[in-house]
Amino acid sequence: MGTATAPWKQLLHNALQFNSNIKHSTYFQLATIGSNGRPANRTVVFRGFQENGDKIQINTDCRSRKIEDLMHCPFAEICWYFTESWEQFRINGTVDVIDGSNPDPMKLQQREKAWFASSPKSRLQYLGPNPGLPSISEQPSQESSLNPSSGPVGAFCLLVVDPDQVDYLNLKSNERIAFTSRQDTNGEKLWNSEGVNP
Amino acid sequence: MGTATAPWKQLLHNALQFNSNIKHSTYFQLATIGSNGRPANRTVVFRGFQENGDKIQINTDCRSRKIEDLMHCPFAEICWYFTESWEQFRINGTVDVIDGSNPDPMKLQQREKAWFASSPKSRLQYLGPNPGLPSISEQPSQESSLNPSSGPVGAFCLLVVDPDQVDYLNLKSNERIAFTSRQDTNGEKLWNSEGVNP
Repeated sequence: MGTATAPWKQLLHNALQFNSNIKHSTYFQLATIGSNGRPANRTVVFRGFQENGDKIQINTDCRSRKIEDLMHCPFAEICWYFTESWEQFRINGTVDVIDGSNPDPMKLQQREKAWFASSPKSRLQYLGPNPGLPSISEQPSQESSLNPSSGPVGAFCLLVVDPDQVDYLNLKSNERIAFTSRQDTNGEKLWNSEGVNP
Repeated sequence: MGTATAPWKQLLHNALQFNSNIKHSTYFQLATIGSNGRPANRTVVFRGFQENGDKIQINTDCRSRKIEDLMHCPFAEICWYFTESWEQFRINGTVDVIDGSNPDPMKLQQREKAWFASSPKSRLQYLGPNPGLPSISEQPSQESSLNPSSGPVGAFCLLVVDPDQVDYLNLKSNERIAFTSRQDTNGEKLWNSEGVNP
């Protein structure tokens, strides 16, 4: 049976609440496909849902390899394992890459909001040297500072994952649910769920 | 400078030792590419290195989707985040899928060894219903049992990941090292390492 609100979102909210005392409960692994045709996989931080929706936000550096990956192939799968409740969410969807050159004013506003929602300390890393490039040993200690009221720097990028498939697994109850979505005639997303063998 | 033994293996050993009191420290996320061209990502369990080598073993069910993925594209990337030591290993390589029909007697022996190294309880799941298929609600409680001395069942599959690139990140020291390998003229793997910006 179809439903307009994402039925897995409540399960994810419960898992986040149950595991909220653990720092790493907001960390998950984001898999993409590299331009070399190989899978890539790294840990990123959950930055919340987009207002009223089921889209998942991630902050990243424009200069990181994953941007190149997503330009080449916009699909990603999140694997989010909750170590206390033994629950896994595999969230597959399309990723919107929002950097400072985005032509959509609404998206630029979302990016700005994500920037100000992040800590001053985490903002500083976007001023650091190019991630993944060889590090220069005699690097001067990072003296850079940022005015807390100044907006996103050029390297700051917001990723928005739009899920269209979610696989939920509970290792305690041994329950597994496959959530799939389709667009209705109005372009609205409808979710279905089905119990599957773990 | 090239070296014959994998220099990241010691770092991984240290991380495993430091985090050994935590059940989930042997869990990591394995990313593959689905036959639909989208990334797939799931949590699996580290089953050790292959003797004297740097190849990583994983047990899985032949009927799981990842087998189909690997038949279509043999590359995978492991993302292994250690929650206590704040270390991440991203291990990219090629995966050998070893099921009961493998023509190589050495590989069949490795598969048998992996089967007997796993617990009797975990062996039982390979007798369960087809993973990912709709579950039948009125399922009889699983009464199946296995003779502890009987060898691997048909659904048991050993995956062997042969790494050729490792990205190490330490979030405490803010250190990142890129390990890359190449084959020498004798077909032996030589590893190089380079400090890169986190």
